Amino acid sequence: MIHLKKENVLDGYFTKHREQHLEELKQFLSIPSISSLSEHKKDMKDCASYLGNLMKEAGLEHITINETAGHPVVTGDWLHAEGKPTILVYGHYDVQPVDPLELWESDPFKAEVRENKLYARGSSDDKGQVFMHIKVIEAFLKEKGELPVNVKFLIEGEEEIGSVHLPEFVESNKENLAADLVLISDTALYAPGRPAVCYALRGLTGVQIDVRSASGDLHSGIYGGGIQNSIHALVELLASFHDKHGTIQVDGFYDKVRPITDDEKAAYAALDFDAEGAKKEAGVKELFGETDFSYLERTWARPTLEINGVYGGFSGEGIKTVIPATAGAKITCRLVPDQDPYEIVKQLRAHIEKHKPAGVDITITEFDKGKPFITPLEHPYIQAAGRSYETQYDAKTAYIRAGGSIPIVAAFDEILNTPVIMMGFGLSTENFHAPNEHFHLDNFDKGLRVVSDYFEEIANIEK
Amino acid sequence: MIHLKKENVLDGYFTKHREQHLEELKQFLSIPSISSLSEHKKDMKDCASYLGNLMKEAGLEHITINETAGHPVVTGDWLHAEGKPTILVYGHYDVQPVDPLELWESDPFKAEVRENKLYARGSSDDKGQVFMHIKVIEAFLKEKGELPVNVKFLIEGEEEIGSVHLPEFVESNKENLAADLVLISDTALYAPGRPAVCYALRGLTGVQIDVRSASGDLHSGIYGGGIQNSIHALVELLASFHDKHGTIQVDGFYDKVRPITDDEKAAYAALDFDAEGAKKEAGVKELFGETDFSYLERTWARPTLEINGVYGGFSGEGIKTVIPATAGAKITCRLVPDQDPYEIVKQLRAHIEKHKPAGVDITITEFDKGKPFITPLEHPYIQAAGRSYETQYDAKTAYIRAGGSIPIVAAFDEILNTPVIMMGFGLSTENFHAPNEHFHLDNFDKGLRVVSDYFEEIANIEK
Repeated sequence: MIHLKKENVLDGYFTKHREQHLEELKQFLSIPSISSLSEHKKDMKDCASYLGNLMKEAGLEHITINETAGHPVVTGDWLHAEGKPTILVYGHYDVQPVDPLELWESDPFKAEVRENKLYARGSSDDKGQVFMHIKVIEAFLKEKGELPVNVKFLIEGEEEIGSVHLPEFVESNKENLAADLVLISDTALYAPGRPAVCYALRGLTGVQIDVRSASGDLHSGIYGGGIQNSIHALVELLASFHDKHGTIQVDGFYDKVRPITDDEKAAYAALDFDAEGAKKEAGVKELFGETDFSYLERTWARPTLEINGVYGGFSGEGIKTVIPATAGAKITCRLVPDQDPYEIVKQLRAHIEKHKPAGVDITITEFDKGKPFITPLEHPYIQAAGRSYETQYDAKTAYIRAGGSIPIVAAFDEILNTPVIMMGFGLSTENFHAPNEHFHLDNFDKGLRVVSDYFEEIANIEK
Repeated sequence: MIHLKKENVLDGYFTKHREQHLEELKQFLSIPSISSLSEHKKDMKDCASYLGNLMKEAGLEHITINETAGHPVVTGDWLHAEGKPTILVYGHYDVQPVDPLELWESDPFKAEVRENKLYARGSSDDKGQVFMHIKVIEAFLKEKGELPVNVKFLIEGEEEIGSVHLPEFVESNKENLAADLVLISDTALYAPGRPAVCYALRGLTGVQIDVRSASGDLHSGIYGGGIQNSIHALVELLASFHDKHGTIQVDGFYDKVRPITDDEKAAYAALDFDAEGAKKEAGVKELFGETDFSYLERTWARPTLEINGVYGGFSGEGIKTVIPATAGAKITCRLVPDQDPYEIVKQLRAHIEKHKPAGVDITITEFDKGKPFITPLEHPYIQAAGRSYETQYDAKTAYIRAGGSIPIVAAFDEILNTPVIMMGFGLSTENFHAPNEHFHLDNFDKGLRVVSDYFEEIANIEK
């Protein structure tokens, strides 16, 4: 039973079709659309095609599966609300890899409801949230025969790999994509029952570092002490990136970081951050990081440099007395306004060159780049989003930043010159990017009503 | 064609049966006796059984497959040379793992001769060399009806995992194993064509370090900057083990190291070490290590701490923006006289405790321990070994140390109180412990004749 603070005009439709909608969503989630692994290229196509059909059946027009040099972009629109604002709905149908698979309690691609939570890869990030927007369109068109606003859909398949080809697509189609606002549901509530409008995101960049010390692995008895070990060189280099408090040691890394304003500091402090709850949620014994900043400041408004993976030598059962010839690491940085990903990669390269240990060759591979994003809190479309949330949730909307990256947000800002509104319905405990990803169906139900209310709110705002 | 400096009494026998011997050796090498991997437990038993048959057919008596808590020990003897010395021949039938398998040019367990080299896992280390001793026995008994000395064989299946159960076996059987000398062929020539008697070995110990920062992997956007990353903690800890020249930073690590004597320094200097050749052999651009010691000193008479493997987080294709909850490393130390492996492990534990980064739990798993070994150069059995080599090789025998470990050697010294003679026929370029292990058949042929000559030399030395 959903508690309604304000009657929603589509409530009956959503209630009546709930089971059918969930079945369709499970089908959508069953397609393993892992964008980062080349063996899933066909699944990506199948998923784009399934998505196109969902949009068509909802009543959207001009459905197009746009081929790119990477995975397809799915578009569609409904543009019959003359004189009304146009909302560009953005989301993504690609998902993260699922390893380690053995930690999943149910098949990541066979969605299962347990305790009113839907378990599957992509349930929360972001297929489940994209699906809600489609169902809002369907509900308006089936119940009212029209939408209160004009809408355009732009759903990509490369968000989890940095939206490699989307900026080019947006650039090439900027007239077709022109809108008054971009609406995205790919962020989380501030807490269970506490909605949040997100006004800033971190950017992303990264490099892979591969170290080679010899032409092949060598016996540690014969050569040990006489030559460099690729892992020794790697760990020496990797350890140079942070001090013991986690402060990044790359020259110039923090130079362009926009200082956190006093208003922001006050707003974050007012959120009554629950350190014990955060520790429990993360499964850690202590919080950790730069000593001069609070946890929320560190995770929202400060940049990071994380080693996401490290590999080299023997990792099987028992021991192997080998000097490994090669070792490597994958690193990504979360960036904040006004850091530039291209400049950061240059700084990383300079750092690696400066700290390069003796006796090795190093190869650097660059990963995707996404700019950080920030938009003013006072924008009417943002304020309206807060009001729509409050029709369904018994709590004040929090206006927050998010620590994650949606690389394309900065591109929308830059190319379309359009405000971006992030109204998310996930929860940070929902294990997106980890085993046992799930989506609370209570937020799915509320989200359908919040989004439909928002469409009506936007229709009433002067263009 | 083998160049004989001194006529060998068994030469005709070895020549006549060469093809048959090689076929038997290939069969022996076809059994994947990898002691460190539990899935090869049955192969270990099969290999012990095959070895026992080889020994029986050679004419050895009292063949026994001795069960242990680990892999079996194979024993046998021939004790009819009254009044003559007794040689205890030691070797091992277990081999190293074969990964990365894709780097092998032929199946590691399907021996293949290319350019008079026998390619297979174990061909050089140590099945091929054990096999030679068996064939020397066979040749004496078939051609002469007797041996010039008494012999006992002790061939174990756990050398590559630190001879875990052999010291206990030797202790329990010390009366049966009593001998005048222990003869081992598990070391390498000094250079192609240049034989070497080895008078000292390094010991071995090691630990696995497992670091945990959280109960599960976390999204780097949500948590990045707020909590510790297990890989960050691991690389900080691992980097603390060495300075940038490779000198080990563990407190007390070098305290018990026996200084290299002036005579030894002179002996090593006289070996005309070829730095360019060593670089080429190892496949490295530069040699590396403690600045106050020569390459030979570093690899023979100085201890090491090598990281043999490192693992944690995502290492697949592309990127995964995860904060890994767990990361780990495998470390082994090569030890020199008079370091004690148990004391070294205590020092490693103290170092890890002292340098433990914030925000993580660390689990330490201890690996096998083998003491370093040294024996006087002037012992008559060692001098005789040098002479026997020179019957087949056109070069002065070098008296050297070896950087590798044969953990049981120290145990023989300690438990049996018997001099140990290491006459190896491998070459350091033969990729033991790496892909494409091979054995030069020229040294196989010479080795048969050297060992048979040595048996006669020993028979003539007063007990």
